[in-house]
Amino acid sequence: MPPRYLSFHSSVPWPILLLQALFLVCSYFAFPDGSDTYQLAPSSSYPEFQDVNHMVIFGFGFFLMVLRRYAFSSTGFNFLLVVLGVQCSVLVEDLLCRTADCSLWSLVKAVMSIAAVVISTGAVLGKANPVQLIVMTLVELIFFYASRCINRTFLEVPEHLTLMHVYLFGTYFGLALSSRFPEPPPGLDKNRSTPKSELFSVLGTVFVWVFWPSFNSILGYSKQNAVLNTYLALAVSAVAAFMSSALTSKDGKFRMAHIRSAVLAGGVAVSYTADRIHHPWIAMILGLLGSVITILGSHCLQRCFNPAMKLQDTAGIHFTFGLPAVLGAVAAAVLRVVEEGTETQWNDLSSLGYITFSGVGAFCQTISTALITGLITGLILNIKLLKAVHVSKYFDDQFYWEFPHLSVGF
Amino acid sequence: MPPRYLSFHSSVPWPILLLQALFLVCSYFAFPDGSDTYQLAPSSSYPEFQDVNHMVIFGFGFFLMVLRRYAFSSTGFNFLLVVLGVQCSVLVEDLLCRTADCSLWSLVKAVMSIAAVVISTGAVLGKANPVQLIVMTLVELIFFYASRCINRTFLEVPEHLTLMHVYLFGTYFGLALSSRFPEPPPGLDKNRSTPKSELFSVLGTVFVWVFWPSFNSILGYSKQNAVLNTYLALAVSAVAAFMSSALTSKDGKFRMAHIRSAVLAGGVAVSYTADRIHHPWIAMILGLLGSVITILGSHCLQRCFNPAMKLQDTAGIHFTFGLPAVLGAVAAAVLRVVEEGTETQWNDLSSLGYITFSGVGAFCQTISTALITGLITGLILNIKLLKAVHVSKYFDDQFYWEFPHLSVGF
Amino acid sequence: MPPRYLSFHSSVPWPILLLQALFLVCSYFAFPDGSDTYQLAPSSSYPEFQDVNHMVIFGFGFFLMVLRRYAFSSTGFNFLLVVLGVQCSVLVEDLLCRTADCSLWSLVKAVMSIAAVVISTGAVLGKANPVQLIVMTLVELIFFYASRCINRTFLEVPEHLTLMHVYLFGTYFGLALSSRFPEPPPGLDKNRSTPKSELFSVLGTVFVWVFWPSFNSILGYSKQNAVLNTYLALAVSAVAAFMSSALTSKDGKFRMAHIRSAVLAGGVAVSYTADRIHHPWIAMILGLLGSVITILGSHCLQRCFNPAMKLQDTAGIHFTFGLPAVLGAVAAAVLRVVEEGTETQWNDLSSLGYITFSGVGAFCQTISTALITGLITGLILNIKLLKAVHVSKYFDDQFYWEFPHLSVGF
Repeated sequence: MPPRYLSFHSSVPWPILLLQALFLVCSYFAFPDGSDTYQLAPSSSYPEFQDVNHMVIFGFGFFLMVLRRYAFSSTGFNFLLVVLGVQCSVLVEDLLCRTADCSLWSLVKAVMSIAAVVISTGAVLGKANPVQLIVMTLVELIFFYASRCINRTFLEVPEHLTLMHVYLFGTYFGLALSSRFPEPPPGLDKNRSTPKSELFSVLGTVFVWVFWPSFNSILGYSKQNAVLNTYLALAVSAVAAFMSSALTSKDGKFRMAHIRSAVLAGGVAVSYTADRIHHPWIAMILGLLGSVITILGSHCLQRCFNPAMKLQDTAGIHFTFGLPAVLGAVAAAVLRVVEEGTETQWNDLSSLGYITFSGVGAFCQTISTALITGLITGLILNIKLLKAVHVSKYFDDQFYWEFPHLSVGF
Repeated sequence: MPPRYLSFHSSVPWPILLLQALFLVCSYFAFPDGSDTYQLAPSSSYPEFQDVNHMVIFGFGFFLMVLRRYAFSSTGFNFLLVVLGVQCSVLVEDLLCRTADCSLWSLVKAVMSIAAVVISTGAVLGKANPVQLIVMTLVELIFFYASRCINRTFLEVPEHLTLMHVYLFGTYFGLALSSRFPEPPPGLDKNRSTPKSELFSVLGTVFVWVFWPSFNSILGYSKQNAVLNTYLALAVSAVAAFMSSALTSKDGKFRMAHIRSAVLAGGVAVSYTADRIHHPWIAMILGLLGSVITILGSHCLQRCFNPAMKLQDTAGIHFTFGLPAVLGAVAAAVLRVVEEGTETQWNDLSSLGYITFSGVGAFCQTISTALITGLITGLILNIKLLKAVHVSKYFDDQFYWEFPHLSVGF
Repeated sequence: MPPRYLSFHSSVPWPILLLQALFLVCSYFAFPDGSDTYQLAPSSSYPEFQDVNHMVIFGFGFFLMVLRRYAFSSTGFNFLLVVLGVQCSVLVEDLLCRTADCSLWSLVKAVMSIAAVVISTGAVLGKANPVQLIVMTLVELIFFYASRCINRTFLEVPEHLTLMHVYLFGTYFGLALSSRFPEPPPGLDKNRSTPKSELFSVLGTVFVWVFWPSFNSILGYSKQNAVLNTYLALAVSAVAAFMSSALTSKDGKFRMAHIRSAVLAGGVAVSYTADRIHHPWIAMILGLLGSVITILGSHCLQRCFNPAMKLQDTAGIHFTFGLPAVLGAVAAAVLRVVEEGTETQWNDLSSLGYITFSGVGAFCQTISTALITGLITGLILNIKLLKAVHVSKYFDDQFYWEFPHLSVGF
């Protein structure tokens, strides 16, 4: 089928060009004349912005580098989606909010929203072509923004907490999306990892781990609390990752794929509550539970749930980000109720009820929006126009990249 | 010719020792007694200094790791030149300015000046031996300082903008220099890259990309502006890099070497104007143009210009840094004139003329100084005393590094 | 011996679980109720905390990746020890100091203390199993804390300088420990490095190098001084590393293993005095001497001292951290005396005597505590219960990690 592939390839640059032109025109109209376009954020938050930026571009880019013949695409496409998504996100926020300012805060929120896209990418890693990924990025960012708006206006979730739903949304959007992609043939061995690809992935994981406290604290009210709680949760989840990995493997050995996922679980699990927890041990318990759930989940999901639901979650985002985020959302609702209850000595039941409704509502709304829009996006992505990749070309850099060198892959 | 190589090798450490001794003696006399030697810079700029430092040492060091048998030398020699150059630069600035203070600002300026050396190194990557590189570093830093002084005193360019000429100077100095080095034989395959060497190079590129906003903003007046404009320009240039790479390659595939160069173009193109642009779309257009020029340039230069001029630009610095810097300088002059013109309603033509003269003058002076001094340095580097490397030993780590292991290279 | 190994492996997770449960319980009682648990540190120190954290987790983790079949364990176990050690260190400090606060400062001190453990790990790299390493971590942190307390209370060493003994303590504890481990058979070739493992190690080294100024300055009084002196010392030691490496190798080539060790020597040598030196040239001389001592030490120790003492120092920590730290401690004592002497015009001899006694006393106390407790810990680690690894399984990832892939190692 060379003509079809040729036509696919020649169709890659034009959507990118169109999109970039659109962004340029939008930015021309969105940010009108005047020197007050650039709002000042407290400059002390610049280092944290750098951390978050570094985490999303470098950390996640290398974190996804798990497949042995897909290293260039993992980082390269992640990079492309981030830089497209940041522009899209800044413009969407600006056009819909009518704020007409472009500040470090818009960038921070944009970069954080992109994490949803990056997580979703993990579910279809190696299966979606760049045009599909770009369409996915735009659609997902708009739906995520809509979901955040609902949470903010109807359920009165504070702004910075709406952004913490990024893990939930990204995961379930990605999962619903991936169910619409054809399965790779069972004999394919290109979707395995090698020690070298895992090593690069570890490199990225360490970056994500180190910069996570900045991610959780940058928008919160009490930054120090958020940093300390996130750090402790991450530390405990890393310990629990080694423990669970050795417990669940056949002969007590560690498995790098488990550990890579589970060390991050603490940061996800504590994300909703990082700036509200006043006792280190609560953060530590959350980290522990998050990590254990991740590793148990990786066993159950990969053996029972995924085959039954015909899901293929290439990078394992369901157990890496999804399950700990569910735990975190539940824990946040419980903690909120307990806190409010202790304060009012469990008298003001209507207020308690409202808090429960708000927390559970935001959680359910996010997941259901993610699942439904993900499913729809999955259907859209597989229309003929977008020229889905044939399963025999899955997980292969050579389909997208020119190699002037002799050997390919690790 | 074993004796000659032996003598070459035994001659490496002595110049380094001499130079370091000289720096020590200079620093003894340059910074006289007293506790006011260490001037205080606002401590909030320390994180940005770290970013710039990290970018120059790690980012550029790994960015240059493109050759398949030259990984150790790429990072190793980059490291050596940076640490030598920083000392040289601090002392030159101190001795010539008679400031007698050694502050974080001197270090920042020194590390930024080093970027010129690092860029020039890219042109002769794999061809110059360490002694040649060291001589080049010293000579280039002194000439760059002289060129900056001319710009500052005669053309009234602000201090922080004189440092932004670092890309122009580095590129054209390196190109002029490289024209004096003998060509590698056509059959040599050591100057190719492999997927693995490209992956390490991508790793470095991402670091350079992420830290570029700090590089462009650290010395400017309005940091937030500089950060936002640089980030937007970089984002657009990354998008344009993917687009142009797919458009110009044979069958619509991406080429990592293109993308690696072009994602950085936005940072270079916007460097002169980052803190003066008040409309995001201008920065975005600059990023777009920079990236397109880089990729078109890489085609034209490598096919037509370089063979005709007998240039060999191993790491492709001409299109990565040179062309976007030219674009940036032209854009800066135009923007300056338009801004001034709008303010004075195009009445004060003599002032407009002076601004044009100043901008164009600084640009021409920098390039011509770079070309002339680069050519002279190229002649100096190829005298017998410095024992130029034979072409058959080009691009090879084994000529400089002891390998106690069996296999070499990627 | 399959049953024995099986039982070893099944015994790994339980100590981790127990330990983590213990930490959780302790943290429940250590930090009582109340919103003042989280003390506020100046938020401007957060970026530096990130640097130190990044340096210890990522930098040292990859710095240790020198063995060709031990990449996963080098980073993985380093990660595990850091996250366990940080919790242990925060709790020890809290329980023994009765401060009952958990602030960014506790974390900073905890992460810095961990450097001792990381350094010690280098001496037994590839020889100790995870359980042994965990026991070592706990014991070493407690003894290091005790040694710091003695220095602080009896010898009146300022708090932040007691933490700078981390290199001395870590090195000599590790060396004493390693002497109790059986030697690997002479024919074993798994403890060699390959160019690729060295490249990853260089990657880690550059991170350690870049972040070292933050490590030396974060707790000191005059941060700018500490940063500048550390940077200059590091720069000079990097230059000297290249010089000495070329001078001492057979045919004037550089050796990456030397350079990797010696570039860091300046940071160690200047650590005690970074915030007290007022002349750049003193810091530079310290960096130069540190680097030269490291490279000469690496020759002498590996050929004469280590075989005679039956030491095996896998990662060469003795010359990388130990010797420059000795130099730094001696230099600190001398500088202190000279400074005090010049001030009092050498009249107040009793005060000078006390200063000398305090400096030399802290130095001797730290080394002797480290040696004795290291020796004892070495004996404890080799009891039957901890199931020491058989020498034939040394330096091998496959003994600890499950590889679902075909090929292993670089």
